[in-house]
Order: sequence, then C-alpha cells, then structure tokens
Amino acid sequence: MSSHSPIDAAVARQAIDAKTKPLGALGRLEDIAVRLAVLQGTLEPAIPSARVCVFAADHGVADEGVSAYPRAVTAEMMKNFGRGGAAINVIAAVNAVDVEVMDVGVDADLSALAGIRHEKVRRGSGNLAVEAAMTAEELSAALEVGASAARRAAAAGVRALGLGEMGIGNTTAASALLSALTGQPPAATVGRGTGVNDETLVRKQGAVGRALRLHSPDNGLQADPRECLRRVGGLELAAITGAALEAARHRLVVVADGFISTVSVLCALRMVATGQVPAVPLAEALFFAHRSTERGYAIAIEACVGIAGCDARPLLDLEMRLGEGSGAALAMPVLRSAAAVMREMATFAAAGVSGGDHEAVHTQPKAS
Amino acid sequence: MSSHSPIDAAVARQAIDAKTKPLGALGRLEDIAVRLAVLQGTLEPAIPSARVCVFAADHGVADEGVSAYPRAVTAEMMKNFGRGGAAINVIAAVNAVDVEVMDVGVDADLSALAGIRHEKVRRGSGNLAVEAAMTAEELSAALEVGASAARRAAAAGVRALGLGEMGIGNTTAASALLSALTGQPPAATVGRGTGVNDETLVRKQGAVGRALRLHSPDNGLQADPRECLRRVGGLELAAITGAALEAARHRLVVVADGFISTVSVLCALRMVATGQVPAVPLAEALFFAHRSTERGYAIAIEACVGIAGCDARPLLDLEMRLGEGSGAALAMPVLRSAAAVMREMATFAAAGVSGGDHEAVHTQPKAS
Repeated sequence: MSSHSPIDAAVARQAIDAKTKPLGALGRLEDIAVRLAVLQGTLEPAIPSARVCVFAADHGVADEGVSAYPRAVTAEMMKNFGRGGAAINVIAAVNAVDVEVMDVGVDADLSALAGIRHEKVRRGSGNLAVEAAMTAEELSAALEVGASAARRAAAAGVRALGLGEMGIGNTTAASALLSALTGQPPAATVGRGTGVNDETLVRKQGAVGRALRLHSPDNGLQADPRECLRRVGGLELAAITGAALEAARHRLVVVADGFISTVSVLCALRMVATGQVPAVPLAEALFFAHRSTERGYAIAIEACVGIAGCDARPLLDLEMRLGEGSGAALAMPVLRSAAAVMREMATFAAAGVSGGDHEAVHTQPKAS
Repeated sequence: MSSHSPIDAAVARQAIDAKTKPLGALGRLEDIAVRLAVLQGTLEPAIPSARVCVFAADHGVADEGVSAYPRAVTAEMMKNFGRGGAAINVIAAVNAVDVEVMDVGVDADLSALAGIRHEKVRRGSGNLAVEAAMTAEELSAALEVGASAARRAAAAGVRALGLGEMGIGNTTAASALLSALTGQPPAATVGRGTGVNDETLVRKQGAVGRALRLHSPDNGLQADPRECLRRVGGLELAAITGAALEAARHRLVVVADGFISTVSVLCALRMVATGQVPAVPLAEALFFAHRSTERGYAIAIEACVGIAGCDARPLLDLEMRLGEGSGAALAMPVLRSAAAVMREMATFAAAGVSGGDHEAVHTQPKAS
C-alpha cells in the first residue's frame, strides 16, 4: 500500500518500446500499459478480476421536480439489478466484470431483496435546495460504505474497480457538487440527466442555484470538498468518493464511469489535494471510462486535467449517458488489453525481428 | 444470405427504446445494437464467436525505400504471429477473439512455419511505382484467399470478422490505392506509416506520385476500383477486399481495422457500388474499429461517409496505428456489448419499472 512503485514510468516505457511494433504504434494503449505497470509495480500488470460497484440512493431534491422519472424508479431499478436485467448486468457479464450493487440510501424498504447489499445509511438524502444533504455522521457512514466495498474488492483479488451509481435526482446533486467544487454556475453544470424537457431543466438549474446560494455563497465552500459533499452531494456520491480513495490506497485500478461518478471522484481528488484525507495515489490509479454527453461532464474532466499525475482523457467516446457503471464495464477490455500488451508481447530481441530506423522514428512527434 | 432482413431498423429501435434505461442513454451502443439486429435478422443478436484475419504480403514498392523497417520484417513477423508474440495475438486472446494468419504473398519461404495458413499467390507484389502490382489472375487469386477465409469463418460459426494485415510497404500501397479511388493527391494520402522520417516520407510521396502518373493519369482509374486494386494495391489488400465482400454476403459483422484495412474495404464498397461484384450488404455489415492516426485515414473514412447505409463513425479512438487487426480485436467487446443490450436487457414492462416522461424526452434532440 505504499504510494511508491518499484517500477518507474521510464522503465515501463522502455519495456513497451522493446515490443514487436513500431514505436508508439499502439497509441494510448501504450500509455495505459505504462500506467498499469507503475501502479501495480510490475512489468507484468494484469487485471484477472474486475468489478463494478453500483451505489444507489434517493435524493430529497427530487421533490423539486428535477427528473423525467418518478422517485420510485430507484427502488424499481434495484429489483432490476437484482434480477440481472439492467444495462450494467448485461454489459458487465459480456466483459467478464462482476457487479456488486449496494443500497446506500434508497427511499424504500429493500430488506427482502436478494442480489444486492444492504448498507442503507438513511432513506434518501435531505433536499439540498433547502437543507444539507447529509449530517456529518451520515457522510462518514456513506464514505465508509464505499471504502468497505473497495476493501472487500481488494480482499477478493479484484484489480480494477469501476464506480457506478443509480439514483433518481442524482445528476442534480452531482451538478450542485461540481458547481460547489469549481465555482462554475448552474447553467454550465446542469444538464438534461435522464432526459428532462426544457421546463424541467429550468427547474433543475433553479434548484442548484438555490442550493449554492444557501450552502456556498460567494463560492465559500470551494476549498472544503468534504463539506461540499455533505451539503450538496448525495449518499451514493459519497460512497463513490470513499470507494475511490480506499481503492487507490490498495493500488487498485480505479475506473470512473460517467458524470456523477466523475464528479464524485473529482471530490475525492480534491480531498487528497487539500489534505482532508491521508495521501493516496488516486491520480495515478484513476482512469476515466468514457466521455459522457451530460452537460457538466466536460467541466468535471477539465477540473481533473490540472491535477498532478492525472490523465484525464476518457478511454471511450460512445455518446453514453446512462450511469450504473455501464461505461466502466465497457472500458475494462481496453485496460485488460493494455496490460496484456505489456505483459505478454514479445520483444524484438526475443522474437528475432529486425528493429526499425529508430533514430529517425524518435525524431517524429509522439502521437499523443 | 438474402440482402433483406426480417427485422427493420424501426422495429429494432422500438425494441431498444423499451429497455430499462432513459431513451437514448446508451448512445452509439444503441445504434450498434439496432444495426446488429437488422444485420442478423433477429432481436436477439449475438457474437458468440469472433475472428480476426491477418493477411500478410510483401510489396515491390519497398524497393523505393519507403519504410522505416527492412522488408525481412514481414517474414519475421509471421514467425512472431505463429508463436503468439505479436500485438494481435495478445489483444485477441484477452478479448476472446481467435486469429487466423494467412501468407498471401510474403517474399520468403514460410512453408515450414506452423500456426499460419499458406496461401501464397506470389512472392511480393510488383513495384507499383513502375509496374502493376498484380496481374489479373493474381488479383483474382488474392481476392479468393480473402473470400475463402470469410467462408471458412462463416462455416465455423464466426459472427464477426475483423480484417487485419501485415506487410512492410503496405501503407504506401494503401495510400496509392486511396489516391486512385478518390483522386486525392499523395500529399493528402501518404503518411508516416510505421514511423518514417521526413526524408523517407518525401520518397514515399514521390513513389505514390509516380504510380498515379503511370497507372491513373488524370484520375482515369477512379471509376474502376478493381483495376485500382490490381495496379496500385497489394496482395493482402486484395485479400481484405475479397474477405469483406464474402463476409457481407454471409451477413457476418465486418470490422475494418486501421488505414490499410479501411482503404481495402473502401475498395470493396466501390466495387459493389459500380456493379463490379454482385450486390452484397457490405455497408450494412461494416463497422470501423478505430480512428487511426495514419494521415490518409480521415480521407478514407470521408469517402465512406457518402455511401448509402454506411455508418462511418469509428468505434474507438485510442490514437493507434499498428494494423494487424489490433483495433478490430479491441472493438469486439463494444460490438458484443451492444448485441447483449438488445438481446438481454429487461424491458420497462417486464421489469415493472416506471417509464419516464416520454413525451418530454422525445422532444429533446437525439444525442447522435
């Protein structure tokens, strides 16, 4: 769990350059392979076991009429997850990724429901437009739900952890959190989520605006990411934050999914940067699965670009905006392929393949 | 093998819209799912078995000094493929894709080499800068190597066929073919390939320029794609063209890889469009695996955009430029995930999940 790796990036780059392919010809796959080698501390990185966690909760702010779907859908989708009928179940199965679904705060009694973990902190967060989403104790508990999920994954031999979510109203919470963390106005961070119409979009932006005036006047909360999360976040967002931090501490590959997941991970990065949590190599461990089409996503990514060690280029761009960890599951084959390139490809020397005109090749600009 | 499907796109779109997710939230994955349903003629599309074919050959034009690597590398890489040490071996294995490597025209005696298919048409093509790359008989034979690979795949139950290649000098041939097919000048179609320096790049563009003046003065060959392929193509390019046509006839998913593969498939599309081959649903069957960074790639894709039924948006963008079918193998999980979404996700009705404010959702612009 040290934050120092026995493999540095230059050594890993040399190893990939010796493989039987033109220098740099595998593009970003090579950059990923180098990062995986450094993170795992070996020139034979591997992701034999991968998991997506789906953290679910309801949101008091749903009372403001900010979603195209009724609040009951969160609980209904939990049943769907339990039966294996949701997108994440299907996409994960195809890609040899297991799925763990956690009730962090769904506003329904799911205690009889099989196939999910019951870790309810409270039945839905407070309405962030008029009150704090959580108490300090509830925030700690929600962070711990995520942290314990990451520890469980590490103990089970999982090497890559995707962070997904479900919760009607949670793009509103993520937008509020993103605004609080970055100072960007609601017009920039609030998008259509599950697909709201113009009227609902205006209501959603209004709710976030009121939340910011109440909780973070003059962007006063920007330097306190933990308090941002407590006041305008959500239970599943906090669980993702906690999972990202703990997974990085175990040097797991951390895979952010879409908008909500990425904002929650940004909060974790900020908590590390401000010293609110012990230093963990989160920037080094973190991959962004896909470029979400949700409006605020680009702002969340931009906020990650400046963080040292953070490669904020999403792996995929398939115009997705579902959540559930669906993008994270879809990105696992890219990560596994990169690891395999580093681990298994023959070198020029071992394969007896003639090298290229290397001097010349080195003078051309790198593709990335 | 009819070119008409019992499932039309509207029916497939309705099926995907009934799944438990906000309308359109899986973005391009939904478009892919719809196309796979239409292609396979079922609302339960599947790709249980996928294959990448690697067609290998040498090129007379390598004598012009157009590559950073010596010609011997083609044969050396065949040994590497046979032993499983190349990028395509490694990436395919991770993604449950099998690999078939064919010697269509390597300039070496590989008859003792295990793990590859021996289908040599001739030892390297003619130097396209000064003569035709192939005779008419050789072109027919090379097209048939590809066609028989596609038939073999269909007979083995393969549902998706990736089209890869290996051949020192083949970006030069692909650039010449692209110029001949589109009328674009060498400066636009000739790039750095395996990574040539400025001096070699100038030589490479010069060789393609001479080839065009010799074989297609005033773009005279543009309307005759078959003759373009014979004069300025290559043996493995022709095999890819033949494989694409035959795979589409069998309604296999056809996955173009990078620059060389895409130009060869463009040639196949043009052969269909000009009636040089019987009509096959190639545009419907065709997916572009990844956006190659090779210079001419964008021009090849642009030439596909105008073709009816052709969705010329690459699935991945990882700044790769290796070939071998490596991008095609990496794209298979995306295709399989899309098929699974259509085949296995629960509907709102079946899962008892409340629908959204659909009227409102329908009024927003589609993500794509």
